[in-house]
Amino acid sequence: MERTKFILDEKAMPTKWYNVLPDLPEPLPPVYHPVTLKPVTPDDMKPIFPMAVIMQEFSPERYIEIPEEVQAVYRTWRPTVLHRAHRLEKALDTPAKIFFKYEGTSQAGSHKPNTAVAQAYYNKQEGIKRLTTETGAGQWGSALAMGCAFFGIECKVYMVKVSYNQKPYRRILMETWGAKCVASPSEDTKIGRAILADNPNSPGSLGIAISEAIEDAATHDDTHYSIGSVLNHVLLHQTIIGEETRKQMEMADAYPDIIVGCVGGGSNFAGQFLPWIRDKLSGKKPNMRIICVEPQACPSLTKGPYTYDYGDTAGMAPILKMYTLGHTFVPPPVHAGGLRYHGMAPIICHLYRLGLVEARAEHQKAVFEAGVQFARTEGIITGPEPCHDLRVAIDEAIKCREAGEAKTILIAHSGHGHFDLAAYDEYLSGRMKDYAYPAEKVKEALKHLPKVPSA
Amino acid sequence: MERTKFILDEKAMPTKWYNVLPDLPEPLPPVYHPVTLKPVTPDDMKPIFPMAVIMQEFSPERYIEIPEEVQAVYRTWRPTVLHRAHRLEKALDTPAKIFFKYEGTSQAGSHKPNTAVAQAYYNKQEGIKRLTTETGAGQWGSALAMGCAFFGIECKVYMVKVSYNQKPYRRILMETWGAKCVASPSEDTKIGRAILADNPNSPGSLGIAISEAIEDAATHDDTHYSIGSVLNHVLLHQTIIGEETRKQMEMADAYPDIIVGCVGGGSNFAGQFLPWIRDKLSGKKPNMRIICVEPQACPSLTKGPYTYDYGDTAGMAPILKMYTLGHTFVPPPVHAGGLRYHGMAPIICHLYRLGLVEARAEHQKAVFEAGVQFARTEGIITGPEPCHDLRVAIDEAIKCREAGEAKTILIAHSGHGHFDLAAYDEYLSGRMKDYAYPAEKVKEALKHLPKVPSA
Repeated sequence: MERTKFILDEKAMPTKWYNVLPDLPEPLPPVYHPVTLKPVTPDDMKPIFPMAVIMQEFSPERYIEIPEEVQAVYRTWRPTVLHRAHRLEKALDTPAKIFFKYEGTSQAGSHKPNTAVAQAYYNKQEGIKRLTTETGAGQWGSALAMGCAFFGIECKVYMVKVSYNQKPYRRILMETWGAKCVASPSEDTKIGRAILADNPNSPGSLGIAISEAIEDAATHDDTHYSIGSVLNHVLLHQTIIGEETRKQMEMADAYPDIIVGCVGGGSNFAGQFLPWIRDKLSGKKPNMRIICVEPQACPSLTKGPYTYDYGDTAGMAPILKMYTLGHTFVPPPVHAGGLRYHGMAPIICHLYRLGLVEARAEHQKAVFEAGVQFARTEGIITGPEPCHDLRVAIDEAIKCREAGEAKTILIAHSGHGHFDLAAYDEYLSGRMKDYAYPAEKVKEALKHLPKVPSA
Repeated sequence: MERTKFILDEKAMPTKWYNVLPDLPEPLPPVYHPVTLKPVTPDDMKPIFPMAVIMQEFSPERYIEIPEEVQAVYRTWRPTVLHRAHRLEKALDTPAKIFFKYEGTSQAGSHKPNTAVAQAYYNKQEGIKRLTTETGAGQWGSALAMGCAFFGIECKVYMVKVSYNQKPYRRILMETWGAKCVASPSEDTKIGRAILADNPNSPGSLGIAISEAIEDAATHDDTHYSIGSVLNHVLLHQTIIGEETRKQMEMADAYPDIIVGCVGGGSNFAGQFLPWIRDKLSGKKPNMRIICVEPQACPSLTKGPYTYDYGDTAGMAPILKMYTLGHTFVPPPVHAGGLRYHGMAPIICHLYRLGLVEARAEHQKAVFEAGVQFARTEGIITGPEPCHDLRVAIDEAIKCREAGEAKTILIAHSGHGHFDLAAYDEYLSGRMKDYAYPAEKVKEALKHLPKVPSA
């Protein structure tokens, strides 16, 4: 009997995050301040982030110790399991070996707590009493709510009003963990009040919610802001995923030929592949393929230019060099809400630019078809975002069958879809539609890029 | 650092279920046929169950080998993790050690697949092409849908119409796993058509759904019926939980003074405690306490008489000796839908009668208070049913603090509450209400017990 699961003992859980910055063949381009348009300094970030996190954003250290208190919380669900998808392989009649590292068993159901817990800890250490953040569908807000519960700090989540009304489950999750969740625009901030005065029925937007969360943090001494993806320190915290997987693949006596994962802001997939890309950077595994999967409806890597743009839709966050569709671009309403981001983590963009990772865009019907096949073979109900990984993994496994090649495919499965069943219903009932790449809207959005002097 | 999790390697997963029947100090009372009112024979059960399962129902063997094909499917999620609730202990400031065995990481989110997978396998072996069952809120129906997907047999679930309309998520889960799910009463059976002819707007009931599922199985040669709790073979399949836990508690160098779990039909908790009660029956651990927790709204063990009653609300299932509130009793609408059963597994009733297990009834507000405390300390969002366990475990841990006793408490945590967030919302917003024990309704229902000649 071949093994189905590779489980790390909690005593073997990695105790360091991996920081790719010192290993990059070229340094990352500088980051610019959204108002001064000058390169961002650590001091610029002090009003909203703790110093430990700011230092991680720029750190030259290859490995960064995970604080013991963070490890202790990680151990409530980590190490997560690496699965061998024997049943899917059999259904595909492929000689490929398919592994998936599954983050869906965290209490919040995804990889997001890996950084939420770390950020809550560092803020607590700095004497911060309260964290704010924005959330769309609620995945990130609920992870931060849980992180704050673990360290006994308050959490205030500004949730886009239309989601707040349509998706009450994620709000209830946040409240169960003790967070305060308000519909944005809210009466709690100056910007929220101004928007409501202008339009009491504003449905809100991620941009407005970010602006409210940042204003709240910047105007309260005991309060900081927390971000769930894109920035270097978030990717760093997620590398616990790949560091664990390396040990588990060793237990499986296997090494990935292909690593596949979906990318929105990019933190889950980078958390998996950065610890592996070391071997590619060092020349040890030059042919390893790393495939980033994005929706056809929001294809920043595959269609966007590599240029400077605001990290957020409101133009309040730092200006980053990214593949971007323009920060004012509003993607079509695909179900994979976590992939509807106009840009991409600068680290991933940089690696893509250097030809070290690939990218591919998929339509949502094909993506859910893969999700249903996975549910019927491996049992797991996959979130709409990681269904993108499954599509590409299945396609690569089919190519292996056709070519008679026994490749090893590793999937960075970021979590379950228990709160996304309406999307499965839409797919199964034939009501789901695909969205073509909205070229004209992107063209329009790209007219509004910030003007960075040196860029 | 003390360990947080005790993880069994899949190679150490128990390969046998434990059958308590030969170890009982007195044999179970006989089971009667609902129509003939004579003792049930294996032949009576042949139209709806596979022979392997029928033999398990009466087996004199202490251990029953888990078929390799069932083990292979179990390994897609088992062994499940035994957790030490360090953070809850600290919040309670108790010297007690609190462990919980968590079944929520199965793909269906509960312990139910332990028997669904086994039943699907045995039916497949017997050449059965299709299984039918009933479901209320959908927990059992979705587990069976998954079990059938794993063995490539069809699954038809009759879902109580009012739940079908109010709780679409569980229906979608079943459909994602490939099952056919219809609102009951349906046009697909004689009894369903008769009820609809009489009342096209019938909201349905569990009794009607059971009747439809049994009629469907009895009238199709290739079809059997499958049941999710109460009967001996279901409890048997669930003993994988306790058998794993015994090995894990040994890893923890601990032995439970108190084992606590909620009981509806009783299969999850029996699956945990039966492998331990051996030590009590053998006199090795005479003081070990086993506490069954039920809702105040449906307190069969604590308030019902020990008498013969139909296993189902429709009067089509065998007549069992149980603590019962009367098969026509309709419990108040507490959120713990899985605990709204009028009777209790005969094995549990028998052990309760013999004084080998205790029972306690709790109100739902106190139960959800415990669920929220658990979410804010251990992170996990607990289903309404196992929140009952948490209430009693926390109360016992507080008693330990007051008495200065370091008891070891083991919780049989049956699963997550991701589909029950509306209940948390009701609790957190102060809208939840408690239901007094409906003594008059029970008195009325107890007038309708079947008349078994020898009873």
